Amino acid sequence: MADPRFFSVAGPFSLKGLAAISGSRIGDGGNPEAQFLDVQPLQIAGPEHLSFLDNKLYLNDFSKSRAGACLVHADHAANAPKEMALLISEDPYRAYAKAAAAFYQRKNTEAHIAPSAIIHETAKIGLNCHVSPGAVIDAEAEIGQNCSIGANTVIGKSVILGDDCVIGPNSSLSFCIIGNRVDIHNGARIGQDGYGYAPGKDGHIKIPQLGRVLIEDDVDIGANATIDRGSGPDTVIGAGTKIDNLVHIAHNAQLGKNCLVASQVGISGSTEFGDFVMVGGKAGFAGHLRIGEGARIAAKSGVTKDVHAGATVGGFPARPLKEWLLGVAALRRFAKKKVN
Amino acid sequence: MADPRFFSVAGPFSLKGLAAISGSRIGDGGNPEAQFLDVQPLQIAGPEHLSFLDNKLYLNDFSKSRAGACLVHADHAANAPKEMALLISEDPYRAYAKAAAAFYQRKNTEAHIAPSAIIHETAKIGLNCHVSPGAVIDAEAEIGQNCSIGANTVIGKSVILGDDCVIGPNSSLSFCIIGNRVDIHNGARIGQDGYGYAPGKDGHIKIPQLGRVLIEDDVDIGANATIDRGSGPDTVIGAGTKIDNLVHIAHNAQLGKNCLVASQVGISGSTEFGDFVMVGGKAGFAGHLRIGEGARIAAKSGVTKDVHAGATVGGFPARPLKEWLLGVAALRRFAKKKVN
Amino acid sequence: MADPRFFSVAGPFSLKGLAAISGSRIGDGGNPEAQFLDVQPLQIAGPEHLSFLDNKLYLNDFSKSRAGACLVHADHAANAPKEMALLISEDPYRAYAKAAAAFYQRKNTEAHIAPSAIIHETAKIGLNCHVSPGAVIDAEAEIGQNCSIGANTVIGKSVILGDDCVIGPNSSLSFCIIGNRVDIHNGARIGQDGYGYAPGKDGHIKIPQLGRVLIEDDVDIGANATIDRGSGPDTVIGAGTKIDNLVHIAHNAQLGKNCLVASQVGISGSTEFGDFVMVGGKAGFAGHLRIGEGARIAAKSGVTKDVHAGATVGGFPARPLKEWLLGVAALRRFAKKKVN
Repeated sequence: MADPRFFSVAGPFSLKGLAAISGSRIGDGGNPEAQFLDVQPLQIAGPEHLSFLDNKLYLNDFSKSRAGACLVHADHAANAPKEMALLISEDPYRAYAKAAAAFYQRKNTEAHIAPSAIIHETAKIGLNCHVSPGAVIDAEAEIGQNCSIGANTVIGKSVILGDDCVIGPNSSLSFCIIGNRVDIHNGARIGQDGYGYAPGKDGHIKIPQLGRVLIEDDVDIGANATIDRGSGPDTVIGAGTKIDNLVHIAHNAQLGKNCLVASQVGISGSTEFGDFVMVGGKAGFAGHLRIGEGARIAAKSGVTKDVHAGATVGGFPARPLKEWLLGVAALRRFAKKKVN
Repeated sequence: MADPRFFSVAGPFSLKGLAAISGSRIGDGGNPEAQFLDVQPLQIAGPEHLSFLDNKLYLNDFSKSRAGACLVHADHAANAPKEMALLISEDPYRAYAKAAAAFYQRKNTEAHIAPSAIIHETAKIGLNCHVSPGAVIDAEAEIGQNCSIGANTVIGKSVILGDDCVIGPNSSLSFCIIGNRVDIHNGARIGQDGYGYAPGKDGHIKIPQLGRVLIEDDVDIGANATIDRGSGPDTVIGAGTKIDNLVHIAHNAQLGKNCLVASQVGISGSTEFGDFVMVGGKAGFAGHLRIGEGARIAAKSGVTKDVHAGATVGGFPARPLKEWLLGVAALRRFAKKKVN
Repeated sequence: MADPRFFSVAGPFSLKGLAAISGSRIGDGGNPEAQFLDVQPLQIAGPEHLSFLDNKLYLNDFSKSRAGACLVHADHAANAPKEMALLISEDPYRAYAKAAAAFYQRKNTEAHIAPSAIIHETAKIGLNCHVSPGAVIDAEAEIGQNCSIGANTVIGKSVILGDDCVIGPNSSLSFCIIGNRVDIHNGARIGQDGYGYAPGKDGHIKIPQLGRVLIEDDVDIGANATIDRGSGPDTVIGAGTKIDNLVHIAHNAQLGKNCLVASQVGISGSTEFGDFVMVGGKAGFAGHLRIGEGARIAAKSGVTKDVHAGATVGGFPARPLKEWLLGVAALRRFAKKKVN
């Protein structure tokens, strides 16, 4: 069970309730009224717990598990212990995510405006918001309903947040317009001016950065990530895109919907991603590139050219993954030749 | 036009005023008294806007633009539409930077000390400063004139700031002495103790870090960047140097004047840069190196040896760029050979 | 001498006192009662200073130094100037670290709770703590004795800190349990939820992150580093491990004792380190790896497979260092061949 000092578990939930929440169906013989208290891995779950089987490597654990109920694909139902109730799903991991989110809700803070929060008289705070101690909300900012603003976070002038957003502590939002159900983690920096200079021998002159950051619905931004505002155009993060910690996104970059960007990635100015682009950790992108829909970029790649939709690339300069791996293998052969 | 919720535009400016500000001269037939309200790209500018042509790729846009005035090199003046007033400049992008900065001024906050700022009684704040809510200024700190200190930023004991500095929200300054016209962006960390240990089998013992960070005039530091103080010598950032987001600069590093350091670069301890060194994103430097004046370091390089003044290097270990590119090409040939 | 605006020096210490503190013994003829005011490098030390010789390159400086006392290995004692008192040590750098720490103590703030700190009524603060202005300490948090909590730092609900911890300004701690003598630098983020999603064509669903971060005794965490809490298991940082700035450690990673992790390293989820693993800057680790005790990972490596205890690896994909260097050399030969 999750440490109750940090997590409060909701429930109990009935088997039929969990089926509805997770989009699964009750397997033969399952008692729809049976009650469950928590989620647990197969190995340690007991009769009061819901578990899940997503990976065939754990089939043995599944067939020996004491879990009272389990989310499982129909193909593996026959391996279940007799006493286990089954929730049959096409995608048990996804179904588990939904069930677990019901037990452990994303926002468990009550509506409250801390007296120490400093909220400008012209700012608007929606219903049922939680504003933590020391948070600063500047003039004409607008916060939607059911938002949680972390302690010592700074929401700049005229920033707009939609509903159901969770902003972690110590973060800074400025020059941005943010949709609904957006999570921004601790220390993220959104909307500061980007890195734009007219260079010269007498010193580099700053170009005023006159755009914004637009963050669409259901986006997550990781801890200490930085997203600079546009220089004239806007910087855009498409709906459903999830960005990990310490990622840098430069001015005018535009990410599509449902992209996954792992930690410490850097995306240079004006580069555009289609939807569902996946990027491994520490990859870097030059500026002004087009990365097609569904492209997959291996960790630590250095992308210097456009990438076609659906392509998988790796290495530096990034090339088709197969070619990169052959290059790695060739180099390894030469290295060994020299030794022998 | 920039979103008026976030930006307030100064002006109008006359053509002759803009010529003076941008260091350009009025082209034949331009009316010195004509008034302009804003800057805009060639494609969308109208008669009340100033635009610029810097890149020949946009010559066609230039010749069709409705902009009332345009900064342009003398070589392209003949391509201008008839109605357009010209401001002739040797370096139109740089001239634009100056003009745009007049329309959109770097600091548009009024002088004000927020009642919620916590300023030690021995700290000194210069005239015309803006200290935002929740900012903490510790004992004996000295802030010059016309500075803006962001919300919830922490200025440590005895820190000295010059005039006209802008410090973003949620940043931390300690053990540092900072010049004039320095911009430090959101969440930057300046002056914490560096990573110095006497390692050993019984555990690693911290070496007290007894130096400072010295930041000269006209430096910019990006969001969530970190600059550690020296271990005994100081860490130094030379005048006019511009550092992007998430850069790490270790103890005792010394950067020359007017360097450009892109995002996520890491510079190890005691490495020294000459003036005008340019570093691409994600490059890394070993410690105790000398990087000569005007050297150019490609993105994602790993620099393990000294670099001569004026050299251009890339790859890991970094070598002359041409050699690195030939190596990349050779590897690609081998990879393809294997495939065919 | 360290800038007295920033550093206050303790002392004076007697030679015998310094011998005891540093674990060294007084060389022949040294006066145990002689008093010393500060530490200084050999080149600038005077009769009132303690210095050290750790590197043979400085033997000449040593033999000419005016330092009143010097920590030195017995092998080099004969090179000392006549007037110099010697403190003989097997490991002079380590002995110096201890002596310097006596002159410049890690925490020189007095016990004090700032009136502007916002401490929940159910939080417990140990004896002799310093809580800086604007710090927020949430419900049921427990802070041990002699801790220093930086300005505008946020300590989340139920977080536990041991004794003698120093937490820098503007940092965020949540969902974590922290040992004794832990230093967490400015802007570090500990305990936020990790990057876990059930991906899908209809959008990626967040997996609730139900674990904690456990930080053992004597750990240092660098500025703006991020350590995510576990997804179910905990994320663990072993005793004595030192982590540099801007490092990312993902959910469920477990680091052993006395590891050294340089700046901008990224460690993916569920990867485990044995004790005394050393990692150079910017290296990256895939998830679910085992890195054996005492392994050494070169800077900028990309580690994709398990690493044996004691092994030294480099490159991407990381391989034995010697092999990687041979590959680099081979590629260089091919590149030159092409040129000639």
